[in-house]
Amino acid sequence: MGPGPSSVSPGVLAAMSEPPIGYLDPELFELLDEIRDGLRKLFRTTNKFTVPLTGTGMAGMEACLANCVADGDRVVVVSAGYFGDRIAELAKRLGAVVDVVHGEWGEAVDPAVLRAELERGAPPVLVAAVHAETSTGVRQDLAPLASTAHEFGALFLADMVTSLGGIPVNLDNWEIDVAYSAVQKCVGTPPGLAPVTVTDAVLESVQQRGLPRANWFSDFKLLGNYYDVPHMYHHTVPVNNYKALQIALAEAFEEGLARRFDRHQAASAALIEGLEEFDIRPLAAPEIRLPTLNAVVLPSGVDDALVRTNLLVHHGIEIGGGLGKLKGKIWRIGTMGYSADLNNVERLLAALKSELHR
Amino acid sequence: MGPGPSSVSPGVLAAMSEPPIGYLDPELFELLDEIRDGLRKLFRTTNKFTVPLTGTGMAGMEACLANCVADGDRVVVVSAGYFGDRIAELAKRLGAVVDVVHGEWGEAVDPAVLRAELERGAPPVLVAAVHAETSTGVRQDLAPLASTAHEFGALFLADMVTSLGGIPVNLDNWEIDVAYSAVQKCVGTPPGLAPVTVTDAVLESVQQRGLPRANWFSDFKLLGNYYDVPHMYHHTVPVNNYKALQIALAEAFEEGLARRFDRHQAASAALIEGLEEFDIRPLAAPEIRLPTLNAVVLPSGVDDALVRTNLLVHHGIEIGGGLGKLKGKIWRIGTMGYSADLNNVERLLAALKSELHR
Repeated sequence: MGPGPSSVSPGVLAAMSEPPIGYLDPELFELLDEIRDGLRKLFRTTNKFTVPLTGTGMAGMEACLANCVADGDRVVVVSAGYFGDRIAELAKRLGAVVDVVHGEWGEAVDPAVLRAELERGAPPVLVAAVHAETSTGVRQDLAPLASTAHEFGALFLADMVTSLGGIPVNLDNWEIDVAYSAVQKCVGTPPGLAPVTVTDAVLESVQQRGLPRANWFSDFKLLGNYYDVPHMYHHTVPVNNYKALQIALAEAFEEGLARRFDRHQAASAALIEGLEEFDIRPLAAPEIRLPTLNAVVLPSGVDDALVRTNLLVHHGIEIGGGLGKLKGKIWRIGTMGYSADLNNVERLLAALKSELHR
Repeated sequence: MGPGPSSVSPGVLAAMSEPPIGYLDPELFELLDEIRDGLRKLFRTTNKFTVPLTGTGMAGMEACLANCVADGDRVVVVSAGYFGDRIAELAKRLGAVVDVVHGEWGEAVDPAVLRAELERGAPPVLVAAVHAETSTGVRQDLAPLASTAHEFGALFLADMVTSLGGIPVNLDNWEIDVAYSAVQKCVGTPPGLAPVTVTDAVLESVQQRGLPRANWFSDFKLLGNYYDVPHMYHHTVPVNNYKALQIALAEAFEEGLARRFDRHQAASAALIEGLEEFDIRPLAAPEIRLPTLNAVVLPSGVDDALVRTNLLVHHGIEIGGGLGKLKGKIWRIGTMGYSADLNNVERLLAALKSELHR
């Protein structure tokens, strides 16, 4: 119940140990097509280039930036947390001129603040924001940010690492141009893949710019030539992770996305209610609070590291500490994917009781 | 029995489906330390920075280049195959001025040819070569190339994708500065990790240069701060692949490396001998022929794609076709890792007999 990887269903775990098949095996491309259809349903998009990139969510972040941004491009990042700041950091390394629209950690950013930033200076090539900020437990509404970015002629990139599969996502409806996620949080597989999706129009335009420059491994054009016909060899894809993702997606659609989102909501609500007994309260206001990653403020007198270690050692339960400026101030408790379960919440609350009342 | 992924032992497959643990779990760092010790033994190095990079062999290639090469650096690549050419392509994308010392595909390159290239032009920052060229089945002796590179003040980078775990490798003795490999060939796990090793001195010098520039995901300095103390979060590492690698390494050392190399040699020899019946002969001369990847020339009148498809569909056996300029001219038959087995060779020869004599 940390910030990810979350626990994985027995069926998904079993799929991890199927014998690997070749990267040009026709069966592999059938598997890949099924996964890609599933990811489109999860993202709610018709984007052709919707793929399980080899790597983790951070590789997805770098890939999306490298394919959209060149030396000297202006990039505006909406950030109210650790992962927003990371987008800015990675964009800078790609040579972009980066402006950050900062929000308070624990709050969402007002689209008007983005507008004000876009009204000054050169028109940006890209605006980026995090949908579900894993460091603060805050949900940022993306549609208003995307439409603001588009008004100023910029592409809009979304980090959906802690939202995809756990809360509603509607890529096409929100007019998001590029997005990445991860599989080890709400999608429900072990880490190793980064779902990525790009609109056809954006894919064409960035390829006309000859992007990405330095990054060969995450070049969408080369990858497209492997994932799609003519299936030209690019790298040896992690087929065991594909099999696991195939099962995880099938399980998600069997459950139904609406029920899946409700399950995350119910687990989070029970957790927040149960934590009140210990005077532990959420960092974020109810209307922007994520049901997937519960950032809760430590009451005074609680030894952060000791309690987390004891939870792990005595009870086999992982919860996460704060990141960046919230280190030592909050806990991050995941109710994500297969872990988003009332029984898990009860076990954690019971374990906390025994540790906090020692 | 393709060019990889190769088959995987039941123990390694089982390890893939252990429940994931957190990226900061103390147990994970114990696992990582054990893996890193094992990789050092396999590479025969004492390099501190010896790690299972997240990604495949191609991610390892890009990571090593990006950490050693900056815009404008001269890089000399020794290439007699598809993967040598790829190193040159990736180095160019990183902004390097690249000269390629070409050899015939199917032959090794004479160190004197490298020397002649180094004697002209600016001193290179890096010389790179492939130890076991997966596209031609040729073993290239690295020690003479490395010493030549060092004479001219250049670092030496080695691709050990199809050698590590299958034929002797002696990183420190050969004075190799940087090397990468993959796990899904002779090491014996499903794809998803790239073993990488760098000498302490080189690591320090590249970090003083502020490398890599654009590439955040494969930044050795940031990665070192995660793999080693202070264990700062970088990305959510693929712990299931770690567990599989732990078992694969344990199995390799239990077998003993000398016996393991002999097993590869025996499987390859039996294959080459058996193929004579069909007038199918190896591309490379015996003294430079790899026992891990058998590149064999197709006799006239054999339908490349049809036979390979029939082997897969009727017999469940994968073999690979030619890459690049050898497409349609050779087959690439892997006797790697768990697949390097006389029973597999016999099954393949029997299947070939039924397909070629139809």
